[in-house]
Amino acid sequence: MKLSARNQLEGKVTNVELGAVMANIKIEISEPNTITAVITKESAENLGLKEGDDVCALIKSTEVIIGK
Amino acid sequence: MKLSARNQLEGKVTNVELGAVMANIKIEISEPNTITAVITKESAENLGLKEGDDVCALIKSTEVIIGK
Amino acid sequence: MKLSARNQLEGKVTNVELGAVMANIKIEISEPNTITAVITKESAENLGLKEGDDVCALIKSTEVIIGK
Amino acid sequence: MKLSARNQLEGKVTNVELGAVMANIKIEISEPNTITAVITKESAENLGLKEGDDVCALIKSTEVIIGK
Amino acid sequence: MKLSARNQLEGKVTNVELGAVMANIKIEISEPNTITAVITKESAENLGLKEGDDVCALIKSTEVIIGK
Amino acid sequence: MKLSARNQLEGKVTNVELGAVMANIKIEISEPNTITAVITKESAENLGLKEGDDVCALIKSTEVIIGK
Repeated sequence: MKLSARNQLEGKVTNVELGAVMANIKIEISEPNTITAVITKESAENLGLKEGDDVCALIKSTEVIIGK
Repeated sequence: MKLSARNQLEGKVTNVELGAVMANIKIEISEPNTITAVITKESAENLGLKEGDDVCALIKSTEVIIGK
Repeated sequence: MKLSARNQLEGKVTNVELGAVMANIKIEISEPNTITAVITKESAENLGLKEGDDVCALIKSTEVIIGK
Repeated sequence: MKLSARNQLEGKVTNVELGAVMANIKIEISEPNTITAVITKESAENLGLKEGDDVCALIKSTEVIIGK
Repeated sequence: MKLSARNQLEGKVTNVELGAVMANIKIEISEPNTITAVITKESAENLGLKEGDDVCALIKSTEVIIGK
Repeated sequence: MKLSARNQLEGKVTNVELGAVMANIKIEISEPNTITAVITKESAENLGLKEGDDVCALIKSTEVIIGK
């Protein structure tokens, strides 16, 4: 399946922190950039996310704010 | 001002495309990653965005989807 | 690729309307529900979206508001 | 009050899971589609959400990603 | 209908600008705050939005970034 | 740094509630408006948010829904 989301950054999971409902996932995409993703705990478990996993961080272009 | 947004990716504007209401901005953050940001035309003009500008792409962590 | 987005609704494209920067896409998911998706024109062209296409509408659970 | 949000899917709450800050709500909208909504615990309590409630899932069209 | 969205700011429409797909709406909520909302042109027309209308700006709490 | 986010509401923090992964922050922006922001606990700690802090609530215009 091809996605409309313009931003698809490949990286590796470096940390998974589970709460009761949400999970905080760290993804190293390239030196020096790390992406923080907050998803449901349910999704983190469903994907079986763990340190070292190769993943893709998807971000819709309307969600990006620009600072200058 | 320090921001709560976890993801702050530095890059350079490589393209600015203005519509009537929205604008599509391309930001090269690091080989081989380019970020597409859609902001209001009003914001693009207000920031005076143009090719070559050093900018920061801000993304709240709740907006990131993970693919594996 | 498996996605963290909890909501993945299958449907058929019933209309594609292109603006200068954005595109408005109608997707019939099931009687009587139609999903409206606004994506970049660039994405609509990149996916080659047209009436009759079988597609999936992906929505992150943090984007849903509940009315009661 | 009439809302600008294009997507208003009617359904029934099938599960409510409360965390410390957030809540995960399942809404069955139509066979075979279930919507997952993550809202604040405060909102879930304020609406008094419980299994069996008739609710509406509201999604702004800019939040929808298309997969094909 | 009562909504889960925590932020519901009442105000008056001060400007409506229509593009091909999107619309930029200005809402004065209280001195000195003006809210800019970008919605689909379709929604703006469907609500019949025009200068002077009393409206409510709804914002889900997960969409707010804090600067300090 | 100047931001593309159209909505920047100044206010004062009136409550901070931390969960395992997320935090619920109340910001009084002007009588009678209070903004609720849900950010990561990590961000709340990183900004050292506490009652009485002067902060800014940033909201991208595409995230605003209009009710009329």
